[in-house]
Amino acid sequence: MWQCQGVSRPDAPAGAVRQGSLREWNLAVVLGRIAAADHPPSRAGLAAETGLTRATVSAVVEDLVAGRLVTEAEPTPRTGAGRPARGLVLAADGPAGLGLEVNVDYLAACVVDLAGRVRHHTVHRADLRPLTPAEALRRLVELATRARAEAAREGLTLAGAALAVPGLVDDAGLVRLAPNLGWRDVPVPALLAGHPPLTASVDGVPPLVVENEANLAALGELHAGPDGAASFLHISGEVGIGAGIVLDGSLFRGARGWSGEIGHIPLHPDGPACRCGGRGCLETYTGQEAILAAAGLAGADLPADTATTRLAELAEGGEPAVLRALHHAGSALGVAVAGVVNLLDLDTVVLGGGYAPLAAWLRPPVLTEISHRVLTAAWSPVTVRPAVLGAEAAAVGAAGSVVRRILARPAGWLTHRG
Amino acid sequence: MWQCQGVSRPDAPAGAVRQGSLREWNLAVVLGRIAAADHPPSRAGLAAETGLTRATVSAVVEDLVAGRLVTEAEPTPRTGAGRPARGLVLAADGPAGLGLEVNVDYLAACVVDLAGRVRHHTVHRADLRPLTPAEALRRLVELATRARAEAAREGLTLAGAALAVPGLVDDAGLVRLAPNLGWRDVPVPALLAGHPPLTASVDGVPPLVVENEANLAALGELHAGPDGAASFLHISGEVGIGAGIVLDGSLFRGARGWSGEIGHIPLHPDGPACRCGGRGCLETYTGQEAILAAAGLAGADLPADTATTRLAELAEGGEPAVLRALHHAGSALGVAVAGVVNLLDLDTVVLGGGYAPLAAWLRPPVLTEISHRVLTAAWSPVTVRPAVLGAEAAAVGAAGSVVRRILARPAGWLTHRG
Repeated sequence: MWQCQGVSRPDAPAGAVRQGSLREWNLAVVLGRIAAADHPPSRAGLAAETGLTRATVSAVVEDLVAGRLVTEAEPTPRTGAGRPARGLVLAADGPAGLGLEVNVDYLAACVVDLAGRVRHHTVHRADLRPLTPAEALRRLVELATRARAEAAREGLTLAGAALAVPGLVDDAGLVRLAPNLGWRDVPVPALLAGHPPLTASVDGVPPLVVENEANLAALGELHAGPDGAASFLHISGEVGIGAGIVLDGSLFRGARGWSGEIGHIPLHPDGPACRCGGRGCLETYTGQEAILAAAGLAGADLPADTATTRLAELAEGGEPAVLRALHHAGSALGVAVAGVVNLLDLDTVVLGGGYAPLAAWLRPPVLTEISHRVLTAAWSPVTVRPAVLGAEAAAVGAAGSVVRRILARPAGWLTHRG
Repeated sequence: MWQCQGVSRPDAPAGAVRQGSLREWNLAVVLGRIAAADHPPSRAGLAAETGLTRATVSAVVEDLVAGRLVTEAEPTPRTGAGRPARGLVLAADGPAGLGLEVNVDYLAACVVDLAGRVRHHTVHRADLRPLTPAEALRRLVELATRARAEAAREGLTLAGAALAVPGLVDDAGLVRLAPNLGWRDVPVPALLAGHPPLTASVDGVPPLVVENEANLAALGELHAGPDGAASFLHISGEVGIGAGIVLDGSLFRGARGWSGEIGHIPLHPDGPACRCGGRGCLETYTGQEAILAAAGLAGADLPADTATTRLAELAEGGEPAVLRALHHAGSALGVAVAGVVNLLDLDTVVLGGGYAPLAAWLRPPVLTEISHRVLTAAWSPVTVRPAVLGAEAAAVGAAGSVVRRILARPAGWLTHRG
């Protein structure tokens, strides 16, 4: 089945409209309007906007305030007579989302509140490849525990967690394959069982969702990026290359949640062997190791983040081998991206992860390939830009995905609280 | 904006639920249940299924029957006492959709009724490349007029039309580019203006929608194909190669409706020049002309349908050059399809159009490439199968898209009628 996540509009009640679901629907509609408003709306404004009666809006708002989802903004001073209207905003001390990430050379944890603000963020650098999955996840639990304590100190309650993994994850949270971590068939939820805050369950918000890192990084960019680009391809350029496809504000996950493996699009069908078993995959030309090798830095054994910084410094200094390597990588990336744009008709491509700091050099050759190869490029230009978030995108996107679930179905959180 | 078509579930009313939209919603819900039922449901059964009261269901059904959308099935004889329950079915003499197609070497028109049955279908073979767009469309109007007369004779009313064109179409029906027809910036609706039945307007059903042929062919396959494969890639292999992406029963159209240009995915970045201006596009290896050339039949100048039949006959007879050509084409197609599956995580690939009769020879090399190149192939096999419909898929899909729009929003049709 095809699934969408990160949808801010609540699902319609199944079948015809009944009384119970009507309350849930109205809660979600009113909360959604408060979340989307540029200025804190009043109850009267919400009634006018939604077509609900004043009395209904007042009752719904009362529930939302009692449930710590919504709070009254400071009143605006008024010069005229009468009580000043009090606007409504999302609570800064209600439920929050915990975002976690395990990657090849770091662990991360972050907390995002209902309004989307990042309230806590820790990154722990370490090469995780020598560790067993259980050892790596034990370290992650330490970070999560610290994040929970920080959240509690700020008056926030963690309502759920999402974990980003650089690999293919099934619906049950089993990591089928994370080639660059060396993980295969790792049952993450079982390994994390019994660790609060990863097991506290809120109705409608699963305690822990395990999801592909590139998918969550795309959600992070949706969260942090400029308004208006609600459909884009977000490419995470690390040791491996993954992509998240965001369509109209929702993550496109594919038939089984395994979409976005752009790194394994064949670039040259008879090219070099890839770790996946295929030949000539994009990753073998534009993955971090391939770029370092082409730049003559193969043996340098730099950690991933340092490698990117080093490449950017050398390119900045005009080092010819590095400039050539980045040009070739950008061209290869552009060929694959042109194929994707021809297939999906996306108008925005975001260079994320390790590609973000290299975007100044990757972007021109990517644009050249697009202009030569995309059928509609002449009358409908494609925007290519660096991501707003860098390596932290996946953890932020993970935490944000928890928050979006609460906003989409506030009744679940309210029931839990009661 | 990202749009979905062919959705059988009605859209939720915008914002909160109000009285007017509630009636529309209930009409769509009840009609949807009748359309989806395996056996004609009774009013009591519909009430139980939807949670609506018996009285509401009866009123809704009365509206649907009066509007010729629904009719009572023949009563099942009962042995017990009491009136036999009368099941409800979609009307066979209500509104219908007109599907049209302009392609390189044929024109087509077909009529599909509310239950999805093809009630009329004409194909007119002619090389349309020497004609101006206005001349080609004039001939199409003749076919459409005949189809309307046939529909009227069977008691059907055409509620709208959709036209399939092998090219890129914008939201206003302007054909930006149809390379194999030689069309560029052709304002189809303006050229067809004033021609009934293409201009009769029904609220909620635009009189004429112009759409990419490969997209509509995919909808045709959705309509005619086996149940359960509601997400698939449908490839139309003609002189050009296009694809339609169906996700959970809906056509994925991309940011501007130009998705599916699989023929211009780069296969060998430095390969032969393509008509699109790019190099090494898939189409230059697996388009019909490329296969004929590889098989040594380049100069034969066969019309498209004959060419495919001829290739199939020669392959059947074991002609080595043809078998080799089909094997190479299948391998090239498989490389591109593997990239698409890695990107989108689809589990079904349908070989349509001119590929359908050649599927016996194309399928094995396509499967080989998938098994070598798709990351998830080992534990999640991809089905590759020939399309159920051949070249007629686009016209059937076009007519079906009109019918789906009526089913999704019956209130529009009922208002029109009144």
